[in-house]
Amino acid sequence: MASFRNDYGVLAHPKILEAICKYGSEENTPYGHDTHSRNAAKAIRKAFGCPKSTDVHFLAGGTQTNMVVISGLLRPYEAVISCDSGHINVHETGAVEGQGIKVITVPGVDGKLNAAQIEAVVKRHIDEHMVLPKMVYISDSTETGTIYAKEELLQIRKACDKYGLYLYIDGARIGSALTCKACDHGPELIGQVADVFYVGGTKNGLPLGEALVINNDELKPHFRHLLKNKGAMLAKGYLLGIEFEEAFHNDLYWKLARHANEMAESLRNGLTELGFEPIPSPTNQVFLRLDKDRAEAIIAEFGCERWEEGEEEETIRFVTSFATDKEDLKRLFTFLQMI
Amino acid sequence: MASFRNDYGVLAHPKILEAICKYGSEENTPYGHDTHSRNAAKAIRKAFGCPKSTDVHFLAGGTQTNMVVISGLLRPYEAVISCDSGHINVHETGAVEGQGIKVITVPGVDGKLNAAQIEAVVKRHIDEHMVLPKMVYISDSTETGTIYAKEELLQIRKACDKYGLYLYIDGARIGSALTCKACDHGPELIGQVADVFYVGGTKNGLPLGEALVINNDELKPHFRHLLKNKGAMLAKGYLLGIEFEEAFHNDLYWKLARHANEMAESLRNGLTELGFEPIPSPTNQVFLRLDKDRAEAIIAEFGCERWEEGEEEETIRFVTSFATDKEDLKRLFTFLQMI
Amino acid sequence: MASFRNDYGVLAHPKILEAICKYGSEENTPYGHDTHSRNAAKAIRKAFGCPKSTDVHFLAGGTQTNMVVISGLLRPYEAVISCDSGHINVHETGAVEGQGIKVITVPGVDGKLNAAQIEAVVKRHIDEHMVLPKMVYISDSTETGTIYAKEELLQIRKACDKYGLYLYIDGARIGSALTCKACDHGPELIGQVADVFYVGGTKNGLPLGEALVINNDELKPHFRHLLKNKGAMLAKGYLLGIEFEEAFHNDLYWKLARHANEMAESLRNGLTELGFEPIPSPTNQVFLRLDKDRAEAIIAEFGCERWEEGEEEETIRFVTSFATDKEDLKRLFTFLQMI
Amino acid sequence: MASFRNDYGVLAHPKILEAICKYGSEENTPYGHDTHSRNAAKAIRKAFGCPKSTDVHFLAGGTQTNMVVISGLLRPYEAVISCDSGHINVHETGAVEGQGIKVITVPGVDGKLNAAQIEAVVKRHIDEHMVLPKMVYISDSTETGTIYAKEELLQIRKACDKYGLYLYIDGARIGSALTCKACDHGPELIGQVADVFYVGGTKNGLPLGEALVINNDELKPHFRHLLKNKGAMLAKGYLLGIEFEEAFHNDLYWKLARHANEMAESLRNGLTELGFEPIPSPTNQVFLRLDKDRAEAIIAEFGCERWEEGEEEETIRFVTSFATDKEDLKRLFTFLQMI
Repeated sequence: MASFRNDYGVLAHPKILEAICKYGSEENTPYGHDTHSRNAAKAIRKAFGCPKSTDVHFLAGGTQTNMVVISGLLRPYEAVISCDSGHINVHETGAVEGQGIKVITVPGVDGKLNAAQIEAVVKRHIDEHMVLPKMVYISDSTETGTIYAKEELLQIRKACDKYGLYLYIDGARIGSALTCKACDHGPELIGQVADVFYVGGTKNGLPLGEALVINNDELKPHFRHLLKNKGAMLAKGYLLGIEFEEAFHNDLYWKLARHANEMAESLRNGLTELGFEPIPSPTNQVFLRLDKDRAEAIIAEFGCERWEEGEEEETIRFVTSFATDKEDLKRLFTFLQMI
Repeated sequence: MASFRNDYGVLAHPKILEAICKYGSEENTPYGHDTHSRNAAKAIRKAFGCPKSTDVHFLAGGTQTNMVVISGLLRPYEAVISCDSGHINVHETGAVEGQGIKVITVPGVDGKLNAAQIEAVVKRHIDEHMVLPKMVYISDSTETGTIYAKEELLQIRKACDKYGLYLYIDGARIGSALTCKACDHGPELIGQVADVFYVGGTKNGLPLGEALVINNDELKPHFRHLLKNKGAMLAKGYLLGIEFEEAFHNDLYWKLARHANEMAESLRNGLTELGFEPIPSPTNQVFLRLDKDRAEAIIAEFGCERWEEGEEEETIRFVTSFATDKEDLKRLFTFLQMI
Repeated sequence: MASFRNDYGVLAHPKILEAICKYGSEENTPYGHDTHSRNAAKAIRKAFGCPKSTDVHFLAGGTQTNMVVISGLLRPYEAVISCDSGHINVHETGAVEGQGIKVITVPGVDGKLNAAQIEAVVKRHIDEHMVLPKMVYISDSTETGTIYAKEELLQIRKACDKYGLYLYIDGARIGSALTCKACDHGPELIGQVADVFYVGGTKNGLPLGEALVINNDELKPHFRHLLKNKGAMLAKGYLLGIEFEEAFHNDLYWKLARHANEMAESLRNGLTELGFEPIPSPTNQVFLRLDKDRAEAIIAEFGCERWEEGEEEETIRFVTSFATDKEDLKRLFTFLQMI
Repeated sequence: MASFRNDYGVLAHPKILEAICKYGSEENTPYGHDTHSRNAAKAIRKAFGCPKSTDVHFLAGGTQTNMVVISGLLRPYEAVISCDSGHINVHETGAVEGQGIKVITVPGVDGKLNAAQIEAVVKRHIDEHMVLPKMVYISDSTETGTIYAKEELLQIRKACDKYGLYLYIDGARIGSALTCKACDHGPELIGQVADVFYVGGTKNGLPLGEALVINNDELKPHFRHLLKNKGAMLAKGYLLGIEFEEAFHNDLYWKLARHANEMAESLRNGLTELGFEPIPSPTNQVFLRLDKDRAEAIIAEFGCERWEEGEEEETIRFVTSFATDKEDLKRLFTFLQMI
């Protein structure tokens, strides 16, 4: 049983827990130098079509990963370009700026930024009295549940190449993005266009952990020093190795994400049948705009988030996950019929 | 079966894993606002004799905790005083300085600093051209396995009071310190003298996690903002809550630490019987100085750490943990008889 | 003779240079503990109606002052609110973020922010996943030459009081703001509403230097430690003392600013007479939108800045200063008649 | 007339002031893009035997320069090696750590570090749990008035080459070092061995300013962005250009330094004749150990610094400068005969 508050309210899929217990009394080399982490890295490289030379590191959480990657790879005068709704700009308590890097924002359309905006930012930053744009940050799926199409990613990559920018993809919900029906490409495209990206575990059935993938050779040296310097290296790193090894065994990672997407689709369909008008979105976040009274009633019962408040209406967010099941939907629909 | 390399080579005690599995499919409020974290906080306050007003936060690892506490609570021009062998000074890749705070070091005696040294440091820092000492950092047990006696802690506290310094105790191995035979005080003394301290989970049978305890009211406001800002707030914070709840249920935490100490004592006794001369130390780290040939042979077989290298001799470190058992000792002793 | 490029192209007013030479071989206590600095502080307190308890420090430049004040007085998770056109957001190469503080921007109207926007920002930052707004940054005169009216300042102060925010006024061009015809208040209002503000020297006839005025008691302790920690304390601080002592002797500071404003007014009038349509603005920056050909011709001859580029037109900026004289205007007008 | 407190108590040599006044009403391009700065850079390159490709930047003060260079050129996990008596370690209020970089200290002999110590530090820092030594910082002349011999500098350079370290020389008193009788090399050696060094103006007759010289191509890109980002770029940068242009015209810089050294030598000789035993030192700092009563009497009269306090004796420091003259010495000697 799960509410619809978020996709990290239930600890882990049983198979992940089983794997953790299976290796619970085994001795492992600490700090990520263990067999499980190596296996997991190999599986992730394969899943995203990355060569052997690609580095994979495991970190505890998403904000930490964004903080380490962005502040660790840029110089003090360089900046990252993000959509104004980007997680780093809104919901990370200034973690990126906290480590010294300015976030340049552009207004998002459907939670996304585009190649033209990147170009415009670069052209506006003309001299040493302004920061030097050096990285583009995008989330896929985005904070509003949308995804990037193949052509959009290729255009962004092209803009990055043209202006010498790194492309960093925040994949906290990359599983949901890549397994949703609307997605027009496979994981390899991510592996191909991104200089660096992470594969989110926390929001897809793992107790914790994000797998950071570094393709660009320039960004690889001494990254383990950086992890330690930013407090992001776990002594028992093999815990993350075990989790991701299991997640990428038998496609569990993709199955969990697909399940969450399917539950979201059922939710959107059910809402529509009941006369509601959910905002169209392809992944595991469902947004609904409705009158305040009913919105608050739903929030009280199902823990949804208030996404946007208006005078008479508000937008609320439902999130599905590996742990959402048909009973959860049924409970919700029953409730909605009564209000 | 465990080597003697460190106390974080085996994931977790079975009881901790059981608890994790037990709550694995339960829904919990994220970011540490869950019942397990509340229960764990309560149990920790009780164990260390802290009042209800004391704050407890759960973080992923020790370096992270040191980094957040020291850099988050001091101002840019303030500094922390540490023993030269202190973990923050040697083995954290400059994480504290990385966040902007200078570590003032004093030469340790048996890995410890004392009240007189604190006083001397304060008196030497006389004007605005020097940093302003504002915090004292000690580890208990220390990096060399020694512990602080009651009187030493009280004297340090007195010096801190005299000069307006915060006392911060790094308790990565506080379990081992407090349960060893030589310890002349209970956990309450830690709760009483420290402005802020942490109770180490990673090195005492938990998969990950450190419980940070804040006694001083000045240091409490907005600490959760700080955690997020430094990438140290886990979405599934209840994982840490579950672990510590179980650890402080039925004294498991203390039992595991006591077991590690007993194994260390058996190790020291066995070494002595075999004609070796281990350096006396009361906790779960055992240091042995011997000729290079035998030292290297032991390292190759048991993964001990090279602690200090000399021309002809070297000091190696054995560490015991909750996972060390009599078979491990037997294997070691058999090996030692052969070299 | 001066171009119209900026107000810092000529080193200093002769009276300032005289003062510097007068005291050039005198011995002074270093690091700002000298008589001249004390005299200057006293005169500045008096000019802005501040009590004796107000602290005054002298720094070398504006970006440095903004960097030290904002990052030094806020905690890592706190943020400063600025107009999007604010100097700290656009033209300081991320100096504020570089020291760890996020700048929250709001869209400026005439280069200004208002009390309602402050309130909206505060209300949007609701929990520990977002930064905590703690300071409001405004420039007066603004980056586009506008000024804050008395009522606007009082409303902003009220919003700051309501939400526990510090008000920081960047006075790089405070002289021009306070001496322009449109200004409806005296310097005392600045001294009254601001927790901290600076009185710009560099852009008003001094070789270098900004006088930082701290009214709020909370912000005073250890500020000299902070200055040194950020590399902002000059050994020969008495140079700045001498400059500001002279600047606030016989109202020289105000006279120079008034002169710059008068030259700007003559410039606006002259432009209008010649059929141009300068954008109305009350201080020493004059903006003119015109066709590209003529704009570029003026830039080439007078070093004006390209302020905004459009398809067929562009906006250019003329700046007047203490060094601008009638001959400069005549040269410009003659040139404009020919293009 | 000058006391013996320091070498920055008198603003500037008259010739420097003349130059400033001469160009005081001239219009110049701001931010260091002016003719005077270019001329000064050229003269400095020539004086130190550097090629045209060497970059020269002008900053306001020494702590600022150290802060920008060290923190701007190293990555977060890299560290700088310094003598324990190094200015960055003692008298800069943690400015280097404040920007995120750890200072690794080694015990100085006569205020100097040597190649063997560098090698030992590098060998001790073996993995990602420790910082990565990447820069060596030395002051010449040192904080205790000593200088590096040619052979010492070459050995340090060799160690830096062997381990891939940058050599950074703090030349706050490089004039005094290079013009003292004991110096066995010319300025070209500094230009040859250092990756980056600065030529101190503040302590050698200039009102303010240090000329930073970057030889190593790796360290040149975007340095102006860095200056601005750290609040270290002056709008009226041509002030520093004018000062250094004059300082390196007709060898004024070297003459002023030589004068300070000669005054120091006369001081040491005079002290010896009067029966005192000054600690031998070749440059413009003179150290004298004597009984407390007389030490305090001298301090009270001449503003010398207390350098080291003992039970019955203390060491005081006299500093001479361009402004010290024979009358100052005579006054001192007369006083010493009376106590």
